Amino acid sequence: MNARVNAGARLAKRMERYGPLCVGIDPHPHLLENWGLPVSAQGVRDFAQIVVDELADGVAALKPQVAFFESYGAAGYAALEDCLGRARERGHFTILDAKRGDIGSTMAGYANAVLRPGAPFEADALTLSPYLGFGSLAPALDLAEEHDRALFVLVLTSNPEGASVQHARTPTGTVAGDILAAAAATNARICAASSTNVGPIGTVVGATIGDAARRLGIDLTEFNGIHLAPGVGAQGAGARECADVFGSSRVLAAASRTILAAGPGGLARARDTVLTELRGH
Amino acid sequence: MNARVNAGARLAKRMERYGPLCVGIDPHPHLLENWGLPVSAQGVRDFAQIVVDELADGVAALKPQVAFFESYGAAGYAALEDCLGRARERGHFTILDAKRGDIGSTMAGYANAVLRPGAPFEADALTLSPYLGFGSLAPALDLAEEHDRALFVLVLTSNPEGASVQHARTPTGTVAGDILAAAAATNARICAASSTNVGPIGTVVGATIGDAARRLGIDLTEFNGIHLAPGVGAQGAGARECADVFGSSRVLAAASRTILAAGPGGLARARDTVLTELRGH
Repeated sequence: MNARVNAGARLAKRMERYGPLCVGIDPHPHLLENWGLPVSAQGVRDFAQIVVDELADGVAALKPQVAFFESYGAAGYAALEDCLGRARERGHFTILDAKRGDIGSTMAGYANAVLRPGAPFEADALTLSPYLGFGSLAPALDLAEEHDRALFVLVLTSNPEGASVQHARTPTGTVAGDILAAAAATNARICAASSTNVGPIGTVVGATIGDAARRLGIDLTEFNGIHLAPGVGAQGAGARECADVFGSSRVLAAASRTILAAGPGGLARARDTVLTELRGH
Repeated sequence: MNARVNAGARLAKRMERYGPLCVGIDPHPHLLENWGLPVSAQGVRDFAQIVVDELADGVAALKPQVAFFESYGAAGYAALEDCLGRARERGHFTILDAKRGDIGSTMAGYANAVLRPGAPFEADALTLSPYLGFGSLAPALDLAEEHDRALFVLVLTSNPEGASVQHARTPTGTVAGDILAAAAATNARICAASSTNVGPIGTVVGATIGDAARRLGIDLTEFNGIHLAPGVGAQGAGARECADVFGSSRVLAAASRTILAAGPGGLARARDTVLTELRGH
């Protein structure tokens, strides 16, 4: 039998093959209008289908943003099921951006909806928010490990208000640093049982945080997982900013508006443009 | 014209009338089985309908837990729409327990799904998770104020892992203390424009946190909003624990399993039993 490949290693291979870019599926009402689609659940469904299909020739990951589906209620969630199912059929790696976080059986309920074969919102990965502590995410970690899924846990976000929580001091460092360390420890345990050095627990760290990590004594540059980095493109970070913040770590740049603004028919080219910028050429 | 009544003041009046109890609608699979219902979206729909109807003679608030609906995908979310609509028809005050938290237009997307008339998951209140900072919740605060809805922001949770984030030190105190202070400042601003001393921004503080707040220098006892306190009943907190933690503040005790375990036909009596315990008789 082959050893199973954890979802972090699987994603890292896709990043080598297709480039380190994750395209957000963010069906903003104004984007729907610009694309000539109705501002409705049907419009969201069509929007997502276009993104999934136009990028089916290759992108490391797609990241549907749940909030823009939730705005349309159960019908919006039906569009999300459709989007995730279609993406899976097309061979995409999907990261469901839901920032879930709770405790015990409630956390398990959220995980069950996403992180197992046949789940209604089945995806390869899920984003999590750790205000209740990294340890509270255990039910999601257990399910992700069982079914070879990845998790991306919020660590350092680029919005200015994030510092009020993420930079706070703990007996062992900072809130953000402790969460990074817990993710790294989990990855180390999982990697020790396999032949890879990249684990399935990723972080979310804004590409535009500047020198915040260094000032806090947090070393993001040798992480044994993948940093998912929003803020590339429209929000201003390019190749140099990514190198400054992340050093030699694996960084999956998340871009949404920059690519989606190109509109139907232009997504693949916009993806290629962003990838060229990311490579610093 | 009458001054509008903010949702915090509205809920406080209901707590005086019906007693300070919020009943969770948590359709766990094992509860569905115990109730003789199928473990499916239809079972969840029937379960929620029974709770809504049996408690329609009076309870301060109902709190559907989103995770237990999400497990069934879009069909589960349709059951949630049904639950919230039926609760509104029966005159209930609803708190959607979703612990949402994001930034900018994404946070606005979540708020739009809940906090306005005609929203698909329209509720009187929504729970929020502030890992991205209290300030990141602004789009939800704005919409809640515009449409007289309440918000409950996680402050101090009773799970042991919560301390790793919530107890962390900031230049002005602690993460939890700063969020409490920000909520209080928002309430003070809103109350100053009206004739009430209870604002619409509540907290979530575990009833079983013991002396954690005191040790951290956080004063929960004179808050100008409502503390939503999980952990009453099945998790072990009674009248004395609530008084210890919350002093003279308004506390809305959240109970789920203790009441739901009574099964169909027994919910109103179980509610009355918990209320009697809460009153310390």
